[in-house]
Amino acid sequence: MNFKIYVIGKITSKSHKAAIAEYEKRLSRYCKIKLFQEKDLASITKKLSDKTYVVLMNEGGKSLSSEALSEKINTLGVTGHPDISIIYSEASIPCDEHLSLSNLELSTGLFSTVIFEQIYRAYRILNNEPYHK
Amino acid sequence: MNFKIYVIGKITSKSHKAAIAEYEKRLSRYCKIKLFQEKDLASITKKLSDKTYVVLMNEGGKSLSSEALSEKINTLGVTGHPDISIIYSEASIPCDEHLSLSNLELSTGLFSTVIFEQIYRAYRILNNEPYHK
Repeated sequence: MNFKIYVIGKITSKSHKAAIAEYEKRLSRYCKIKLFQEKDLASITKKLSDKTYVVLMNEGGKSLSSEALSEKINTLGVTGHPDISIIYSEASIPCDEHLSLSNLELSTGLFSTVIFEQIYRAYRILNNEPYHK
Repeated sequence: MNFKIYVIGKITSKSHKAAIAEYEKRLSRYCKIKLFQEKDLASITKKLSDKTYVVLMNEGGKSLSSEALSEKINTLGVTGHPDISIIYSEASIPCDEHLSLSNLELSTGLFSTVIFEQIYRAYRILNNEPYHK
């Protein structure tokens, strides 16, 4: 699987950057994942390939449990959607799914930390491996 | 206001510890807040004073928006509940409120990061101040 995480704005907090780097490293054995910090929504949408599976995330989306997220990743992997673009934006854009990590408004850095950690958790669940904090 | 955040287990991730320390420092102008990393639920419950307002948090609680959380903090402050104990535990314990930050299962470190950041965000909202990431 190949995950592209798109957020708007630069992450300035060192601690969030460190957390993301930590989970990116841990995830390297399971998938490809990369964070893109873009200027605006237009610079994100022009980067999206035609065949990528687009997941819009914001507080208005359908909220997921960790188990449901891992099942979703598993299903996408086996049904010919190996390329996933996750976009964190308040704007309403055309997408294949509209999901939510929380009803809370999360900063760009915190959203990125949570999505990296949850994708890592999803792979640990799928592989029946214990979750390391 | 005086917030005590109780979690079970030690936070080992340096990046989460750094994020919590950052928000603890920023929150010092608005309230008292302290994180307690306890061995188990029993060691938490025996520390709770009779008059503290107990908020249990886990995935099963009522989910909140950032605005609702800031209103709640405001209301508790003006209705004689200056002392708030927030407990992150899967166990069902007697409490004044049962809330949820997310349907996702959050690690102890990530939960602590999110609650510190959201309390900071709540105070920025209450004071009509811009939110700094």
